[in-house]
Amino acid sequence: MRTIDWNDENSTIIMVDQTLLPAEFKVIECDTVGSLCEAIWSLRVRGAPALGAAGGFGIALAALQSSADSMETLFDDLHKVGNIIKSTRPTAVNLAWGVDRVLDAARDAYDTDGMLRILLLEAKAIADEDVELNKRLGAHGAALLNDSDTVLTHCNAGRMACVDWGTALGVIRSAVEMGKEINVIACETRPLNQGGRITTWELMEDKIPVTLITDSMSGHVMQQGMIDSVIVGADRITQDAVFNKIGTYTHSVMAKEHEIPFYVAAPVSTFDFENMEDQVEIELRNGDELRFLGGKQIAPLDVQVYNPAFDATPMEKVTAIITENGVFRPPFLLDEVKYKN
Amino acid sequence: MRTIDWNDENSTIIMVDQTLLPAEFKVIECDTVGSLCEAIWSLRVRGAPALGAAGGFGIALAALQSSADSMETLFDDLHKVGNIIKSTRPTAVNLAWGVDRVLDAARDAYDTDGMLRILLLEAKAIADEDVELNKRLGAHGAALLNDSDTVLTHCNAGRMACVDWGTALGVIRSAVEMGKEINVIACETRPLNQGGRITTWELMEDKIPVTLITDSMSGHVMQQGMIDSVIVGADRITQDAVFNKIGTYTHSVMAKEHEIPFYVAAPVSTFDFENMEDQVEIELRNGDELRFLGGKQIAPLDVQVYNPAFDATPMEKVTAIITENGVFRPPFLLDEVKYKN
Repeated sequence: MRTIDWNDENSTIIMVDQTLLPAEFKVIECDTVGSLCEAIWSLRVRGAPALGAAGGFGIALAALQSSADSMETLFDDLHKVGNIIKSTRPTAVNLAWGVDRVLDAARDAYDTDGMLRILLLEAKAIADEDVELNKRLGAHGAALLNDSDTVLTHCNAGRMACVDWGTALGVIRSAVEMGKEINVIACETRPLNQGGRITTWELMEDKIPVTLITDSMSGHVMQQGMIDSVIVGADRITQDAVFNKIGTYTHSVMAKEHEIPFYVAAPVSTFDFENMEDQVEIELRNGDELRFLGGKQIAPLDVQVYNPAFDATPMEKVTAIITENGVFRPPFLLDEVKYKN
Repeated sequence: MRTIDWNDENSTIIMVDQTLLPAEFKVIECDTVGSLCEAIWSLRVRGAPALGAAGGFGIALAALQSSADSMETLFDDLHKVGNIIKSTRPTAVNLAWGVDRVLDAARDAYDTDGMLRILLLEAKAIADEDVELNKRLGAHGAALLNDSDTVLTHCNAGRMACVDWGTALGVIRSAVEMGKEINVIACETRPLNQGGRITTWELMEDKIPVTLITDSMSGHVMQQGMIDSVIVGADRITQDAVFNKIGTYTHSVMAKEHEIPFYVAAPVSTFDFENMEDQVEIELRNGDELRFLGGKQIAPLDVQVYNPAFDATPMEKVTAIITENGVFRPPFLLDEVKYKN
């Protein structure tokens, strides 16, 4: 099944609960916007492209459950709901993009029934397109990998971060589909271990060779000559920086130090054409993510913690950005990426 | 109490079981060389200087329990026991140094009783000297820190890594004792979280401000201008490289990238005057350290894992090495560090 989808039978959002992986594969249902927001905030669904679909489906769900009796009231309500959904993960641009895309589409409606129909169709279109564009992105990126390459990746930019296929792991899947042998080194990605829990699980399901390391080993494995390239996803790309899971910046500096290509794989919806790096808020998460792991205490209970969810990699550390529209090497104009190669 | 010590009442080795920190402070007793080896291998006692004392006490314990009836047999037996103790942590040079130092001292004995006495006195001398030299090391290093500096450290090179006071944290303690205000950023240090569990706990006991981060955040906090210097310990220092806890190399490259001083604090016993970097074996540990945390599964059970315990930081990334004999800035001759400043 897809990572996140619409259930037509009872008009709810269904998703894989990623907090339980790899021990348990469980599909959960969100039947209110509140439960969707909880799922986003708790990272039951995460990953920039998947959040785009979550934003779209969230607005469609809110509309179906609204008691508004005019188009204007409905639209106003949905705008407010959209702001609540967006606020759950402020750094990830795709979430806001998904919300705004379905709201924009709703402007074409003639009546509330039509608006409901348009909102749901647009949300479903986001999900369908995500699968298709990840395949195109994968094909562009696969050309950058050589047979028997070992690729280091951070966090999870795979099927579980998208509706299906994946961005960084989509590139690897496409390369494997083309007959190339690719080995993956997955960084566990503290504090929530998306690399150790989800990337490893996904690749093992696909029988793609994967080796797990701690985040702190990336320098060592590069120094040992074990890595041919780095591919990561992105949560927001501005003209001057790539925002991605905390730790990405460190890997980018290590890659530059060892003259290893550092690739970012992300759909065009990840690009932020309006802000520069210093205008983007980096989400700070609860310190308990470092004090506990799965309910077990791993640090003093009252220790002060700094827990930013993302960091910013300056564009000079990026070899190329792989999108569904082609591969862009900095410096490039943001507008260029909007048009297909 | 000291991290590791000799219990004169029943002739055993006592130590703080560091695997239980910070949830529990428990003192355990090793009454056989086998239980000492288990304690070293399981990291109940760890840290280069503490392992020097463990090696010395281990030989003294073996001698007291030996049934050898001649000095030659006893010495041969102890040599074999020494090799077993050394093999438990092959990269940490201090363990071998402690074993060899007491064995060398035993050559001065006239009879087996004298040998037993000399072995125990020498082992106790290692422990006593460790406390004293850490204070001297701390004073040399404290001069490098400014009032209100924030220092990033990795793993635990504190009281718990030594007999008392600490090397990297000893420098910080000495600076605080001199009246300087020092803030510490502690990297949690995957996979066994010595930073998150032990460094934080030690500093909080001493009321020195400490903030916990994941290892992957070091680049981000340096990029944000939050760090004035980095101080780490060492497990072995050759002419060309510093071997320390995995992740140290990555921090050293990040420090260089951000023009932040990168200091190594270690006693002279950590220096290896015989080997170069490529001759040193890096200990590979069990993959379950990444598959489980405190009994909880955090990765697929059968995922392939690469788990080196140490990495090598080339000397060009090191600003200075702080020893009990003074501060040495590369390039330096290894023999220079043997003599007091």
